[in-house]
Amino acid sequence: MTIPNLTRRTMFAALFAPALIPQRAAVETSDANPLPSWDASARKQAILDFVARVTMQGGHDFVPPEQRIAVFDNDGTLWCEQPFYFQLAFAFDEIKRMAPQHPEWKSQQPFEAVLNGDIAALEASGEKGLLEIVMATYSGMTVDAFAATVRDWIGTARHARYKRPYLDLVYQPMQELLAYLRANGFKTFIVSGGGVEFMRPWTERAYGIPPEQVVGSSGVVTYESPPDGKPQLLKIAKVEFIDDGPGKPVGINRFIGRRPIFAFGNSDGDLAMLQWTAAGDGACFAGIVHHTDAEREWAYDRKSHIGKLDKALDEGRAKGWAIVDMQRDWGKVFAFERS
Amino acid sequence: MTIPNLTRRTMFAALFAPALIPQRAAVETSDANPLPSWDASARKQAILDFVARVTMQGGHDFVPPEQRIAVFDNDGTLWCEQPFYFQLAFAFDEIKRMAPQHPEWKSQQPFEAVLNGDIAALEASGEKGLLEIVMATYSGMTVDAFAATVRDWIGTARHARYKRPYLDLVYQPMQELLAYLRANGFKTFIVSGGGVEFMRPWTERAYGIPPEQVVGSSGVVTYESPPDGKPQLLKIAKVEFIDDGPGKPVGINRFIGRRPIFAFGNSDGDLAMLQWTAAGDGACFAGIVHHTDAEREWAYDRKSHIGKLDKALDEGRAKGWAIVDMQRDWGKVFAFERS
Repeated sequence: MTIPNLTRRTMFAALFAPALIPQRAAVETSDANPLPSWDASARKQAILDFVARVTMQGGHDFVPPEQRIAVFDNDGTLWCEQPFYFQLAFAFDEIKRMAPQHPEWKSQQPFEAVLNGDIAALEASGEKGLLEIVMATYSGMTVDAFAATVRDWIGTARHARYKRPYLDLVYQPMQELLAYLRANGFKTFIVSGGGVEFMRPWTERAYGIPPEQVVGSSGVVTYESPPDGKPQLLKIAKVEFIDDGPGKPVGINRFIGRRPIFAFGNSDGDLAMLQWTAAGDGACFAGIVHHTDAEREWAYDRKSHIGKLDKALDEGRAKGWAIVDMQRDWGKVFAFERS
Repeated sequence: MTIPNLTRRTMFAALFAPALIPQRAAVETSDANPLPSWDASARKQAILDFVARVTMQGGHDFVPPEQRIAVFDNDGTLWCEQPFYFQLAFAFDEIKRMAPQHPEWKSQQPFEAVLNGDIAALEASGEKGLLEIVMATYSGMTVDAFAATVRDWIGTARHARYKRPYLDLVYQPMQELLAYLRANGFKTFIVSGGGVEFMRPWTERAYGIPPEQVVGSSGVVTYESPPDGKPQLLKIAKVEFIDDGPGKPVGINRFIGRRPIFAFGNSDGDLAMLQWTAAGDGACFAGIVHHTDAEREWAYDRKSHIGKLDKALDEGRAKGWAIVDMQRDWGKVFAFERS
């Protein structure tokens, strides 16, 4: 996770968002029209053609089902990442929730800044401060306890702009794409710069992707087995693996152990993953979500602090990857939009 | 992988084993008798009872299919590990194969010792020397090239005692157990101290376990993307993760992200994995393969340098885990035995 520069407005919005219980919509597709939220476009056709080619028995590009590995970035590819990564919103909320047990935070940066909504101080604390905040949300907790706090938060927190639960902010066209690939024998994985233990508690419910198919950044975990107590896995405040940039193909190799034939990302942090996928020997597909829709979502690319899409946009264009224009290619961005 | 003390006899046997092409037998089971190579015993009954309980819809111990995670140690649990870990036999063979490109090895320990079959010198090089040997077999190679050498070796090398390909030395009763669990909705994983990239090229063929369900020890891999060339993942001579002892529950958490309900091991290196599995909230099963059959396989436990089973044997007995007596409980150890 690259730590963004934050604006006063967006920061406040996150700090004081109200909490309610979310409702999730089911993915409805059909064999006749497997990607109903995708408008007719060359990108949609490229997906349909690719899947037809690799699944045609006896065809030149046929790929056996066990090799149909599809990988997806999460933030900005499967759900929103604006005005800043949702894991950061979780971290701010957690600091506020945990504050009564940490009276020292009232006069200790960067925690004081979060508690007071002091954006100038938070920005002054920089990446180091934000990392400190994120780590404070799990340091010394068991993995089970942390998963429970994530589940609580994802079930109650709301996004400031949409006034909706975060799980409402998954992209409907990508939900359809995941379901379509699985219906065609693909195994779908998340490969995200976000924290793996932040994602796993809800990816099965949100995307139909089980915990063991989620690759992400991680902190060190230690096993403790007291003679008279229950064994525990404890999270400690030390970074173990950053699943971003060149870390993505490394993470794919480490966790999946074979090269994907299908990859989707949205930023320069996904470039190495897309390159690695596109450099396979057989048929392969590389796609990019280009955020071009300021009305329904956001419009950002080369200059954005979050989800910067610059080198990958050039390389994707040069190599003929499928660059999805969110505004033109997606008839619907979110399930809650009226048709 | 704990590095063993090696005897002169066993070392020579590995160094000069002849090479041929292997034949693999299929696993034949039936609904009526899903574990035909298991003799009737309390251990067999415990397995059947456990699977019946967790799969009975509406029953008190029912576990939804997606939570039916089963983990297996590899060396000594799914296949033999004597007279020393098969990965070490691979490493010795590789040193000999690579020697022409490394003339300096003729006068450089520990390589000289491998090339000359000089056991005293090899023993003198200790764990450090053996690690150096193992690392020399992959350092600077791409992950694809390393996988190819493993596939070549597993297809041609033969075990000195059995004069058979190594894949013939998987335990038939465990093959049946893996198939039985999968037929009952379990997802089967390997969680081994062995190198993950040594196992993944053949686990699907040998056990029906795909690469993405193999957790093991690993070395560091780096991503290289030359401007004018193909991107590559390179293996470098640096240990990244040791999936043994307390590393096993840590590896389970990192790679699988949920607690297993079924675990099988054979040594003290599996104790933490068994404890972690047995400490779950719902129904759980912990099993140990006890090597008691010197005639068909080997007999070893508390004093063995390889696969030492001491603390786990005591704790398993105290906690009522299923401790398989290989001699008495397995009607057949290997598929190639005559019935």
